Amino acid sequence: MGFARKEYEFLKELGLGPRNPGCYVNGAWTGNGPVVTTVNPANNQTIAEVMEASIQDYESGMQACNEAAKLWMQIPAPKRGEIVRQIGEALRAKLHHLGRLVSLEMGKILPEGIGEVQEIIDMCDYAVGLSRQLNGSIVPSEREFTHYMWNPLGIVGVITAFNFPCAVLGWNACIALVCGNCVVWKGAPTTPLITIAMTEIVAGVLEKNNLPGAIFTAFCGGAEIGEAIAKDTRVPLVSFTGSTKVGLMVQQTVNQRFGKCLLELSGNNAIIVMDDADIPLAVRSVLFAAVGTAGQRCTTCRRLLLHESIYQTVLDQLVGVYKQVQIGDPLEKGTLLGPLHTPASRQNFVKGIEIIKSQASIICILLGGKILIGGSIIESEGNFVQPTIVEISPSAAVVKEELFGPVLYVMKFQTLKEAIEINNSVPQGLSSSIFTRRPDVIFKWLGPHGSDCGIVNVNIPTNGAEIGGAFGGEKATGGGREAGSDSWKQYMRRSTW
Amino acid sequence: MGFARKEYEFLKELGLGPRNPGCYVNGAWTGNGPVVTTVNPANNQTIAEVMEASIQDYESGMQACNEAAKLWMQIPAPKRGEIVRQIGEALRAKLHHLGRLVSLEMGKILPEGIGEVQEIIDMCDYAVGLSRQLNGSIVPSEREFTHYMWNPLGIVGVITAFNFPCAVLGWNACIALVCGNCVVWKGAPTTPLITIAMTEIVAGVLEKNNLPGAIFTAFCGGAEIGEAIAKDTRVPLVSFTGSTKVGLMVQQTVNQRFGKCLLELSGNNAIIVMDDADIPLAVRSVLFAAVGTAGQRCTTCRRLLLHESIYQTVLDQLVGVYKQVQIGDPLEKGTLLGPLHTPASRQNFVKGIEIIKSQASIICILLGGKILIGGSIIESEGNFVQPTIVEISPSAAVVKEELFGPVLYVMKFQTLKEAIEINNSVPQGLSSSIFTRRPDVIFKWLGPHGSDCGIVNVNIPTNGAEIGGAFGGEKATGGGREAGSDSWKQYMRRSTW
Amino acid sequence: MGFARKEYEFLKELGLGPRNPGCYVNGAWTGNGPVVTTVNPANNQTIAEVMEASIQDYESGMQACNEAAKLWMQIPAPKRGEIVRQIGEALRAKLHHLGRLVSLEMGKILPEGIGEVQEIIDMCDYAVGLSRQLNGSIVPSEREFTHYMWNPLGIVGVITAFNFPCAVLGWNACIALVCGNCVVWKGAPTTPLITIAMTEIVAGVLEKNNLPGAIFTAFCGGAEIGEAIAKDTRVPLVSFTGSTKVGLMVQQTVNQRFGKCLLELSGNNAIIVMDDADIPLAVRSVLFAAVGTAGQRCTTCRRLLLHESIYQTVLDQLVGVYKQVQIGDPLEKGTLLGPLHTPASRQNFVKGIEIIKSQASIICILLGGKILIGGSIIESEGNFVQPTIVEISPSAAVVKEELFGPVLYVMKFQTLKEAIEINNSVPQGLSSSIFTRRPDVIFKWLGPHGSDCGIVNVNIPTNGAEIGGAFGGEKATGGGREAGSDSWKQYMRRSTW
Amino acid sequence: MGFARKEYEFLKELGLGPRNPGCYVNGAWTGNGPVVTTVNPANNQTIAEVMEASIQDYESGMQACNEAAKLWMQIPAPKRGEIVRQIGEALRAKLHHLGRLVSLEMGKILPEGIGEVQEIIDMCDYAVGLSRQLNGSIVPSEREFTHYMWNPLGIVGVITAFNFPCAVLGWNACIALVCGNCVVWKGAPTTPLITIAMTEIVAGVLEKNNLPGAIFTAFCGGAEIGEAIAKDTRVPLVSFTGSTKVGLMVQQTVNQRFGKCLLELSGNNAIIVMDDADIPLAVRSVLFAAVGTAGQRCTTCRRLLLHESIYQTVLDQLVGVYKQVQIGDPLEKGTLLGPLHTPASRQNFVKGIEIIKSQASIICILLGGKILIGGSIIESEGNFVQPTIVEISPSAAVVKEELFGPVLYVMKFQTLKEAIEINNSVPQGLSSSIFTRRPDVIFKWLGPHGSDCGIVNVNIPTNGAEIGGAFGGEKATGGGREAGSDSWKQYMRRSTW
Repeated sequence: MGFARKEYEFLKELGLGPRNPGCYVNGAWTGNGPVVTTVNPANNQTIAEVMEASIQDYESGMQACNEAAKLWMQIPAPKRGEIVRQIGEALRAKLHHLGRLVSLEMGKILPEGIGEVQEIIDMCDYAVGLSRQLNGSIVPSEREFTHYMWNPLGIVGVITAFNFPCAVLGWNACIALVCGNCVVWKGAPTTPLITIAMTEIVAGVLEKNNLPGAIFTAFCGGAEIGEAIAKDTRVPLVSFTGSTKVGLMVQQTVNQRFGKCLLELSGNNAIIVMDDADIPLAVRSVLFAAVGTAGQRCTTCRRLLLHESIYQTVLDQLVGVYKQVQIGDPLEKGTLLGPLHTPASRQNFVKGIEIIKSQASIICILLGGKILIGGSIIESEGNFVQPTIVEISPSAAVVKEELFGPVLYVMKFQTLKEAIEINNSVPQGLSSSIFTRRPDVIFKWLGPHGSDCGIVNVNIPTNGAEIGGAFGGEKATGGGREAGSDSWKQYMRRSTW
Repeated sequence: MGFARKEYEFLKELGLGPRNPGCYVNGAWTGNGPVVTTVNPANNQTIAEVMEASIQDYESGMQACNEAAKLWMQIPAPKRGEIVRQIGEALRAKLHHLGRLVSLEMGKILPEGIGEVQEIIDMCDYAVGLSRQLNGSIVPSEREFTHYMWNPLGIVGVITAFNFPCAVLGWNACIALVCGNCVVWKGAPTTPLITIAMTEIVAGVLEKNNLPGAIFTAFCGGAEIGEAIAKDTRVPLVSFTGSTKVGLMVQQTVNQRFGKCLLELSGNNAIIVMDDADIPLAVRSVLFAAVGTAGQRCTTCRRLLLHESIYQTVLDQLVGVYKQVQIGDPLEKGTLLGPLHTPASRQNFVKGIEIIKSQASIICILLGGKILIGGSIIESEGNFVQPTIVEISPSAAVVKEELFGPVLYVMKFQTLKEAIEINNSVPQGLSSSIFTRRPDVIFKWLGPHGSDCGIVNVNIPTNGAEIGGAFGGEKATGGGREAGSDSWKQYMRRSTW
Repeated sequence: MGFARKEYEFLKELGLGPRNPGCYVNGAWTGNGPVVTTVNPANNQTIAEVMEASIQDYESGMQACNEAAKLWMQIPAPKRGEIVRQIGEALRAKLHHLGRLVSLEMGKILPEGIGEVQEIIDMCDYAVGLSRQLNGSIVPSEREFTHYMWNPLGIVGVITAFNFPCAVLGWNACIALVCGNCVVWKGAPTTPLITIAMTEIVAGVLEKNNLPGAIFTAFCGGAEIGEAIAKDTRVPLVSFTGSTKVGLMVQQTVNQRFGKCLLELSGNNAIIVMDDADIPLAVRSVLFAAVGTAGQRCTTCRRLLLHESIYQTVLDQLVGVYKQVQIGDPLEKGTLLGPLHTPASRQNFVKGIEIIKSQASIICILLGGKILIGGSIIESEGNFVQPTIVEISPSAAVVKEELFGPVLYVMKFQTLKEAIEINNSVPQGLSSSIFTRRPDVIFKWLGPHGSDCGIVNVNIPTNGAEIGGAFGGEKATGGGREAGSDSWKQYMRRSTW
Repeated sequence: MGFARKEYEFLKELGLGPRNPGCYVNGAWTGNGPVVTTVNPANNQTIAEVMEASIQDYESGMQACNEAAKLWMQIPAPKRGEIVRQIGEALRAKLHHLGRLVSLEMGKILPEGIGEVQEIIDMCDYAVGLSRQLNGSIVPSEREFTHYMWNPLGIVGVITAFNFPCAVLGWNACIALVCGNCVVWKGAPTTPLITIAMTEIVAGVLEKNNLPGAIFTAFCGGAEIGEAIAKDTRVPLVSFTGSTKVGLMVQQTVNQRFGKCLLELSGNNAIIVMDDADIPLAVRSVLFAAVGTAGQRCTTCRRLLLHESIYQTVLDQLVGVYKQVQIGDPLEKGTLLGPLHTPASRQNFVKGIEIIKSQASIICILLGGKILIGGSIIESEGNFVQPTIVEISPSAAVVKEELFGPVLYVMKFQTLKEAIEINNSVPQGLSSSIFTRRPDVIFKWLGPHGSDCGIVNVNIPTNGAEIGGAFGGEKATGGGREAGSDSWKQYMRRSTW
């Protein structure tokens, strides 16, 4: 087993061993479900084993969590903030180990792994301040005054995906905890060590403060546990990150029992490059947005819309930089592109390329579509694929879907109006960006007739989330908003009197 | 036909005739669907005829509305506010006629009818101020600043119920319009004259300002039109007021196409009277909350929870005041209780009483449940029923449901904790109130372990909505919030950059 | 007397006669101080006579006002909002008459006169919405919750200047009234008819609602009344608009008795034109900003900073449009430049030009300063002067001061940094604007090292105030903020518990 | 010298020695002004020597600070927040040593000393969150949108008093720093070691982050340095804590040069005990509020207003608990009352008692005033005095003034109205509290006709500040608001465009 390897020694510092119970239930570690192995996407070799949650583990965990909720919601918010502050400090102390684990188990390059953990730390700091700002209001009315204040919901369920195996937990848990909610977390089935290591850190802080561990309840597991959370009336809010298809099912299940959802679903994000753009800046940004995290971010740039006048120039430069992308072990310095997360992801890439080719082959005749660079997997132990650029028509069916890998569709346009129409023509509505220097173009882009996405960038890539802002998207992306601004209100219920 | 009667002459002032087209489509009146008659609930006689919308009417209306949306969203918000201000002025000029129409067609007493129209006028004033306050933010971040601003959604669908046939439209439309959205309204099938009269007023203002009438598109019609709105991808937000059952269906349909819902569904609202309460104040409030609008408000008090020490005293006084309730024509001065809205409502009342009796008869032996006063219909041309008080156990199944009429369930409790548990034990979560003088009881009631409703009153009835606050409830009530506070954000989409 | 003239007949519609009592005291009109005449600046002929306030008038007015404050502060804010709404409607009905009076007595051109009254109407609408939004907060703390709410101050003193004889009252009074304060107003000594006409309208609304007239107390008068307000401990807040010199004296007097001031003092506003600016747009904006209201706005552009590369082009175009400025009776259609407000203003202009010449004569040799156009008075009955452009060095002493007339200083710069330094080199800090198309220049301009003014415009003139924003400036301009945003907080006191 | 003593060894841990330079100027320690000794108020023995600032030190410090400001204001706010976070961590590491130093040099008891330092730590946490929330706004307007954002002021001057020798610095500096301002601090002349130790900690963090030390510039010194700050045009905002008399002088000086002040001046805080109050709770609260910090808090309860029906009961109980107050070394466990800060303070106490006696002697005959307990100094090396209760009339002149020591004036009232009038009858308006169980009394107390203070407590003492709220008072207390809520806006300038 890989665990014995010298380069895996740091895992011990995170409390991980060759075989790990995968449930933190009522303040103790257990795991009576299937035993699964977790592998390194760079070589598909086992890292360690994890005992997942059984439904009985879930039920006993939730009973304890429900009891803990009664206590936690009565602790004054600034004191809850102090716990979150300590979680932030504990994460800071393990920043590099955790970042390394994220790279190892998820497959993203090390700076991205560390960056993801840093994001949770920043969220903790933010949430500490927020713990003194969960303000209700006293509103003048004909009857003198109407008041409203915010009460905790009780328990918040958080179901996260493999691509951000800990940051999304951080966005939700930091806010949920200061708002007075217990958290029940199901991490992705393929990143259980990250789930366990993160939970260890939170658990350590709770224990040090003599608080019930059940305030933070975590399960490694699959669809069965996810479904249990969706159906559980003890969980008034379920925050789900994943595909649009699964997200809609979760939403229906949760709504049926009068619960609420916070959804972060698929993106299909475009970058528009206008004729007056700073082209070198645009090219660098597209590379970063399309190839970063091997195209497995929700904010990955999947569509590149180029003004006809600079179409060939940008494409040529882009193909040039794609050729220089260093592919390899994400833990190694200099690597820009690591493996896809699983062999199945690689298989999807292969299937996707076939569909593109089939669609492109028809279009080829009509519209001139073709693969300009990449399009193949890389033969190796790991799940590596080539970064790929495809020339295609905006009307090709494949362009409406999210292919989770480093595949970029390039399209040509003549007018801003047309570019915005293409941008808005997909079901998803997460992120988008335009490169231009003209204020009038920028204002059009930001306004009511501009991009219909939640994130509407200018001269920067489609990816990147600011903690103080509210992250999320419209349409098939689910409409949720996480992290900053007034996102916290979703984690509380308003009492008016 | 009733229309010829002298007392109906005021209808002409509202632009109504014996036969009225029921669709305002692309700035013109039409109606190619079924012809229905609208009746006076106080005598079940026809008032007038209305030509409902056909699906073709719907489609041509929505096409025009969609075009109008492109224009309306580009008008600066304060200028949209000016239009809403003029709508308010136009309503002010017709306040008494409109209030009278509400009483006539819906059946609520005249002061309630006028009060409902006044509420829209107040909403207009509020929305005018709001039109200069739809603020985005400039948030400091590591990249210097993140910005977000609010863009219109396009079209907001509003489906309203018979019990507030115009105020709920007002809550939604005033906000939706200043936010830059067109409105498509389907009123209740049994209150078409109100739908038409309200629309006439809005239409008049649009026309006077040379704006497309399609900015406000209205349909008289039934489930078919409601379903069309729910399925229509041109309508990103559907605000629905009605039963929990229908609301859930609407929500699923709208979510399936990635739209959003704003739901105001059933309530099952309790008043708790503590041992130290001001009893005369409590009795008056319960009467007002349980019998007002013939028990057909979403905020009607349906459950009365009495501390055992004052149980009999309050009950005796309450029965006393119930005996004096003046029942009759809602347009007549002095009437406190008008008819139910339709013969079907009266039939539901009869069925409900039968179920209560059957459940009460078992409980009677065990727990002493019984009908203390009322329980029958009143023989007449109209849909009148007796105001009814039922002694019943909180565990009786019938108590969990919303019986839409003047039926009050009375229950006994021993401790505050028990009372709050009973209050929270129903699926609905709209309104609630406690009568007490003790600050510690009040804080418990308002806090995380208190009432789980959206409205948590103290020493006032369960009903009543403040414009500056946000109206709405939790759980099966749907979680929507309308009118004041930051409710407007639901009518816009956030663009972050 | 002018009053008999046919063109003055409209004054009767505003309740004005040949001789008018100038104090509205305890709901009645009186005036036992000096009798003054008010004149038309276009011909210096008398319009009417006004009986100013004596100190006894002041004292009896304030006693009544103080009593009225006890009542007014207890009326719920939305009901106070309803009064302000009615004031807005009453102003709407008299919009053109009032606008005409402003032109007649102050001397600004008719569209500006009407625009000024419209601004108060908009403020009324805004304040109505605000009356439901004077929100306190419920803040989570270690002791569970800290609350704060906002209480009225009692009486707000408003001392206004001749250049905006009614809009500034509107900014202050609309907010002060919905916040629950009585208003005591001293208008400018040279615009008493406007003071009286405005007060008549407010008084009419109060009377119609059976409220004490003393809620709005107004005095025509001079420095003696102003000083009485500044010293009066019954007036916790004094809003003063006028010169920096007098403003500082008022502030010291008010602070000495522990009162607060809201100051809107002198401006010395620059427009910067960068090398990439839209020059025709810039020229039009400078003309509008420098010549509008005969240069007697606090936001008048007094300094024009031109990049050396477009210096001569802009100057030539500007001199060209200055030559075409139509000077004449402000009530006549087509007039762009009316008279200065008083003969003394004209005398100041003459003196100012002399100083400019004397300074310019020295600089002339060194730096090339000179009068390019204008520089003289126009011989006539009225107080007309020529619109004037002066080429001068930024280091000339005269440039640091506010010369209240249509005199524009033009300077040359080489770099943005230099332009910003010149912009910030005067004691005043009200308004400023830059004309450029480069986003990087704009962000520098708006940022910490940019303009130090309260208003930092881009590609629009220096003048103009948005109701939803907060109007005011830094440094010698006094730091006050009026109208929108959270300006209302200055009119209330915060109670924390 | 005391420094050699074993119990002073901890001072070395804070970087203090027997002779300490008292200026942190341009990142280095110096001090070319007078050499002063700092003494322990419990025995008036020297602790250490401090070299105060000369005017030359001030000037060179300010020049460096002004340069540093240009850099600091350009660092993104969240990164400034990170610095403040590190300051918080550094303070946490020294919490007990710093708390002990506060007790030693200022004389307050150890739990109060530690509590004061903890307050800064909490402020740091709060400010970190705030660094992502210094939000500007995008406001809809007729011209599409008005924007405003907040820019740093540059340098904030903070002049603090001996009674909170570090917490008040913390309130100001944490906010000022995240807002992008450099801080120049002058601590109280009698607590220089605290000034130095605090500055050492801040300096250490700046150095570790390779930032100019001049971002935080500190001076030990007296009136000369304070005056220099007040006159310095490089300091746009001066936050001053101290007496009303000096505060007014500072304000005039600062206003004269168009700077702004944030004043926290004298308090004269009353507790009202109603007939229905929880008397044991009230007695404990009064003891805590009147004797804590030896009566040297700005929020100390100085006036006790008792309803006539419980007057004697409360007085008897209060005299009882006063008799048990343990007086002694503030560093010793169990001590409740330490010494006054200086021999001069003790002398003031003696003079104050004489005046009371002289006024009371007249009143005695008329109104029954007398010293009930205490009234003398305690013979010892230190500045100890007896906790004192005085029966006196509300109309005695001495009651309007702040006597900075443990002297409590007791008065009788008959009605709530009378009690509120007495509460409001003094020039100061900082804090106040009422003890009652009646909601109607509470609402009257909080409302427009209630207490005119900034802090309006209910059933808790007059002292205590919540970080999330805004601390400060009205009238002669100066009107400033510090710490939470929107206090930060005072530390920035608003740019509207």
